[in-house]
Amino acid sequence: MVVRMSHFGDLLPGARVLLGPGPSMADPRVLRAMATPLLGQFDPEFTLIMNEVMDLTRFAFESENLHAYPVPGTGRAGLEAAIVSLVEPGDRVVVGECGRFGLLLIEIAERCGADVVPVRGEWGRILPTEAIAAALHGGPTKLVAVVHGETSTGVLQPLEPIARLAREHDALLMADCVVTLGGSEVAVDRWGVDVAVAGTQKCLSCPSGLAPVTYNARAAAALSRRRVKVRSNYLDLAQLGDYWSPARFNHHTAPTTMVYGLREALRAFHDEGRDARFARHRLHGDAMRAGVQKLGLELFGKEAPEHRLPFLTPVVVPPGVDELRVRRRLVADFGIEIGAAFGPLQGKIWRIGTMGASATRQNVLSCLAALEHVLRGEGWRSAPGAGVDAAVASYRDAGVRGEDVTESLGASGIGRV
Amino acid sequence: MVVRMSHFGDLLPGARVLLGPGPSMADPRVLRAMATPLLGQFDPEFTLIMNEVMDLTRFAFESENLHAYPVPGTGRAGLEAAIVSLVEPGDRVVVGECGRFGLLLIEIAERCGADVVPVRGEWGRILPTEAIAAALHGGPTKLVAVVHGETSTGVLQPLEPIARLAREHDALLMADCVVTLGGSEVAVDRWGVDVAVAGTQKCLSCPSGLAPVTYNARAAAALSRRRVKVRSNYLDLAQLGDYWSPARFNHHTAPTTMVYGLREALRAFHDEGRDARFARHRLHGDAMRAGVQKLGLELFGKEAPEHRLPFLTPVVVPPGVDELRVRRRLVADFGIEIGAAFGPLQGKIWRIGTMGASATRQNVLSCLAALEHVLRGEGWRSAPGAGVDAAVASYRDAGVRGEDVTESLGASGIGRV
Repeated sequence: MVVRMSHFGDLLPGARVLLGPGPSMADPRVLRAMATPLLGQFDPEFTLIMNEVMDLTRFAFESENLHAYPVPGTGRAGLEAAIVSLVEPGDRVVVGECGRFGLLLIEIAERCGADVVPVRGEWGRILPTEAIAAALHGGPTKLVAVVHGETSTGVLQPLEPIARLAREHDALLMADCVVTLGGSEVAVDRWGVDVAVAGTQKCLSCPSGLAPVTYNARAAAALSRRRVKVRSNYLDLAQLGDYWSPARFNHHTAPTTMVYGLREALRAFHDEGRDARFARHRLHGDAMRAGVQKLGLELFGKEAPEHRLPFLTPVVVPPGVDELRVRRRLVADFGIEIGAAFGPLQGKIWRIGTMGASATRQNVLSCLAALEHVLRGEGWRSAPGAGVDAAVASYRDAGVRGEDVTESLGASGIGRV
Repeated sequence: MVVRMSHFGDLLPGARVLLGPGPSMADPRVLRAMATPLLGQFDPEFTLIMNEVMDLTRFAFESENLHAYPVPGTGRAGLEAAIVSLVEPGDRVVVGECGRFGLLLIEIAERCGADVVPVRGEWGRILPTEAIAAALHGGPTKLVAVVHGETSTGVLQPLEPIARLAREHDALLMADCVVTLGGSEVAVDRWGVDVAVAGTQKCLSCPSGLAPVTYNARAAAALSRRRVKVRSNYLDLAQLGDYWSPARFNHHTAPTTMVYGLREALRAFHDEGRDARFARHRLHGDAMRAGVQKLGLELFGKEAPEHRLPFLTPVVVPPGVDELRVRRRLVADFGIEIGAAFGPLQGKIWRIGTMGASATRQNVLSCLAALEHVLRGEGWRSAPGAGVDAAVASYRDAGVRGEDVTESLGASGIGRV
């Protein structure tokens, strides 16, 4: 018998400060909302919640699209849902690739039976619009798929020029906004993005498990114009869209608790406001970048700072330093997780995320102090405290100070003596 | 602008007693576990949790299979993952159908490119083994797919004879155990089921969103013998199996909170023990059935009580009673949800579930009292209190009494007078 009848203890994992590329730390208010007892999925109170989630999803994507709802799976499920639902076997699909998640789009599109035309770019740089244009000139294209925030390299791809091109060629544009939604602008309508797919576990600070998507009337028309049935039932956007409509077409059983969590995460975004939230993500990313540079470390992709994700800092592992050992020590001694890298960048860079609820001054300063200490153990020297000081200065320049906690941490007084 | 900038309030849904066909009420200990802060998905503490979830999944399926883990989606995602991963376009697939979820298997298999041979049975009865045998004689078959617990009709299909047949014909057997896992025996190894797929929101009392699956070496061999790539990336069991293996092959971002919830739900199952848990599900179902019959209502499928799901009671809507109005009143006045029906049974039966944490004496008695009251409003008369009394008698015959709460509900004493 493989089953070991050993004691399965209470779930008591160690505390972690999650500063990798995702998941970020779940917002405590999201976890609290997720503890709410369940409703049946056709209960009028639940369908009201669904409508609110749709409104909040439109808010997040800056969109008036009718269709705005979560696909019941992780970000990857949302990407596959969009591609499998839009693409009929043999359709030409132009996919931009300058990182791990571009590669994923290629692989998904191939599995969906598309005739994939990859447009390869340099890892660490954006895709040149001209390369997409050239691919579009190669033949009638159903879909252009690109990554908005390439988490593997820390690059933010401008979408508006690609959207314009796609429209000129009567193609649809799908954007992978898994890492960007809630952290930087995703203005679907203004930019002309036809389908946008996001995730919950990055800048929204909700646990992984849902993929908010939105698509416009052009994409919806493509769904209804299909000649061949979608190759998936679970990820069929037409069916999912009917379920998330007044028709309440029966499909999967709603993942109630995840829907509760997403609602609260989007509500927190709405409460904070788009501008304030994006500024907060930039603020902490800037402080982190100021700090790591003062530790003597080099930023990956520093040649094009204007195309850098504000909330994800890729850092070149310095010579003589053991990439994995540093991450292990950070977890073991400080409970801090930063991210490794994929493919050609594996072992060469770290990825430090400052997303959602993880993006706080305390986390940034703690990470820099811990990193200085661990790097010293690897023989990498920097001026003592220089990383933290640089981050503090970055915050001060932005008008942000630490909370004054002198009084509240002091004794409550021992009376007159 | 579609977005209404109205106030998005706190999540404060009404309390519900969920006695439909699923979701059942989430076990409070599951919801508490889901409030645990997140770990990164390659954190050694998280991979340890993954290994425990696999062990507990083997316990639940009574299996020694190497592969036993949750697919990151609802039960439907698990079913599609099994079919899309095993079936290559043109493969012959025999699908049993005597209810809504058999129809779903047909539809998924067709979308996956299978040559589907449906074996139709009567809704409310099991599939006769001979009909499966006849279909298997029709040609070389890759997969036989059947529903173990047909939630739409309340029927429990014996799997062992079908497994024997499938093996004789060198076909694999996949069983949809979405509703049965945790509520009645699912003995995958002993019965010879090659692939079993479950859900979380029925008898496991965990919110919907994961699909525990297990498959044996025969099925794993079929996965690795494929000539054509699986048509899905997200639902590719080979990739998912590699992620849930010591290789930790990178795939989707783990839905951490759902994994926490599933672990706790399976641990609660393990704590309770299989025999005790199945007996509890039978106990409350029996009491519910005794009660509804004393309300003068007829059980659907009563001709074959031996093939009835113990924890799902289908009840014929009596003449002159408005099916929907009864369910509405139950929710509005008593906060109790029971289920409607699908397709040919729509409007004709209710489905009353007593699954997982919903299966309590209090819930059964409250439901019967409320149902009596609401039916009286519809002009349906029964002896006052007869339903509740019959359930109480059913419990008493099984040796179960209500808790003695006289003392604890009384005043704490006013001292001697």
